[in-house]
Amino acid sequence: MLLSGGLDSATVLAIARDQGYTCHALSFDYGQRHRAELTAAQRVATDLGAITHRVAHLDIAAWGGFSGSALIDPIDVPKDRDSQQMTAQIPVTYVPARNTIFLSYALALAEISGASDIFIGVNAVDYSGYPDCRPGYIAAFEAMANLATKAAVQLPSPAPLRIQAPLIDLGKTQIIQRGLELGVDYALTHSCYDPSPDVLHPLGCQPCGRCDACLLRMRAFAELDLADPLLG
Amino acid sequence: MLLSGGLDSATVLAIARDQGYTCHALSFDYGQRHRAELTAAQRVATDLGAITHRVAHLDIAAWGGFSGSALIDPIDVPKDRDSQQMTAQIPVTYVPARNTIFLSYALALAEISGASDIFIGVNAVDYSGYPDCRPGYIAAFEAMANLATKAAVQLPSPAPLRIQAPLIDLGKTQIIQRGLELGVDYALTHSCYDPSPDVLHPLGCQPCGRCDACLLRMRAFAELDLADPLLG
Repeated sequence: MLLSGGLDSATVLAIARDQGYTCHALSFDYGQRHRAELTAAQRVATDLGAITHRVAHLDIAAWGGFSGSALIDPIDVPKDRDSQQMTAQIPVTYVPARNTIFLSYALALAEISGASDIFIGVNAVDYSGYPDCRPGYIAAFEAMANLATKAAVQLPSPAPLRIQAPLIDLGKTQIIQRGLELGVDYALTHSCYDPSPDVLHPLGCQPCGRCDACLLRMRAFAELDLADPLLG
Repeated sequence: MLLSGGLDSATVLAIARDQGYTCHALSFDYGQRHRAELTAAQRVATDLGAITHRVAHLDIAAWGGFSGSALIDPIDVPKDRDSQQMTAQIPVTYVPARNTIFLSYALALAEISGASDIFIGVNAVDYSGYPDCRPGYIAAFEAMANLATKAAVQLPSPAPLRIQAPLIDLGKTQIIQRGLELGVDYALTHSCYDPSPDVLHPLGCQPCGRCDACLLRMRAFAELDLADPLLG
């Protein structure tokens, strides 16, 4: 399963474990400006019982393959937006072909480990803005993946691989509700697109509380009459 | 376009250039045992007029993501096989999910460079053995790619991306014939799965002349009453 260290993928890990899956977590160091998410991914993987956690290093940003994203280049991250502003266009935090590359690595890992399922935390909040978070995209990746590997030509019949996106119809509030039922400790996660350094914080930084990622969390916790443990 | 430095992708580059495309070449350092192909890719890119040539470094082999392939692990490469033996099963040189990962990187590069087409050198010889070289796989990747990027949600209408596999119905003899018509210098390419070191050779090694890759080339050149320039 793809594990970013954020709220969504932490919840997906808890759901997969609850369903009885043995989970191999896969994170990516792709030159993202905020490295705290890799630390968060490690904490989440350990806390929620992934049996392995790998970090793949991609040099694609170094040759411009991911350029133009605020997650990598020094572009201002939008702040203080309402939900309508957030979904009006493809966010500046969009990274070209990122989910396709991440899922392709997961496909290689699934093949060598004999996994039957790949889990990804895309959800209804994302797919309004990111083309590679939409249900049709996930279905098309699954169709392609089922033609791509040895399992696809296995005799007497191919072994199907499923791309599971258990959050795909859920909003942020429902995701948090489901995660809390399953015991997810959201204090271990990291979502902020623009954190400030803080040597006293376990992740080495404090979330800004004003970017889309922070606001989506805060508003969802507030709807549940809870405070976001990261933003108190 | 994906450029391995082998005979097939060199021919594809010549075809794309002949069709008037401006070509960006993309090669991969994925821990393959024989690095000569990266040198060959550079020579081919320069000789056939690619305007850029990038080498992406993948650490996936380091964490076992590509394990079990004779191209990476010290597994014996089969020698002296006839064509029936070569196609009886998935070759030991198969690398899990490799083309999916390579095409995903190409998709990112296409998106940032505004490319309309991705070229890949899969062909009829390959797709008998490699699941990710079959026409149905290429079509499924194209369908997925057309849902994956900003271009897919561009208004008023999406900009289509094509995955072009101009060799897909050709055998090795026809490929060489087409390449020679277009002036490809096959002495610059590298195909061998098991070369020996040779400091006097421009690629630093000599092809073995006995693995499937060498034999497919030699037999195809022989059908054209020619000697393979690599094997004299």
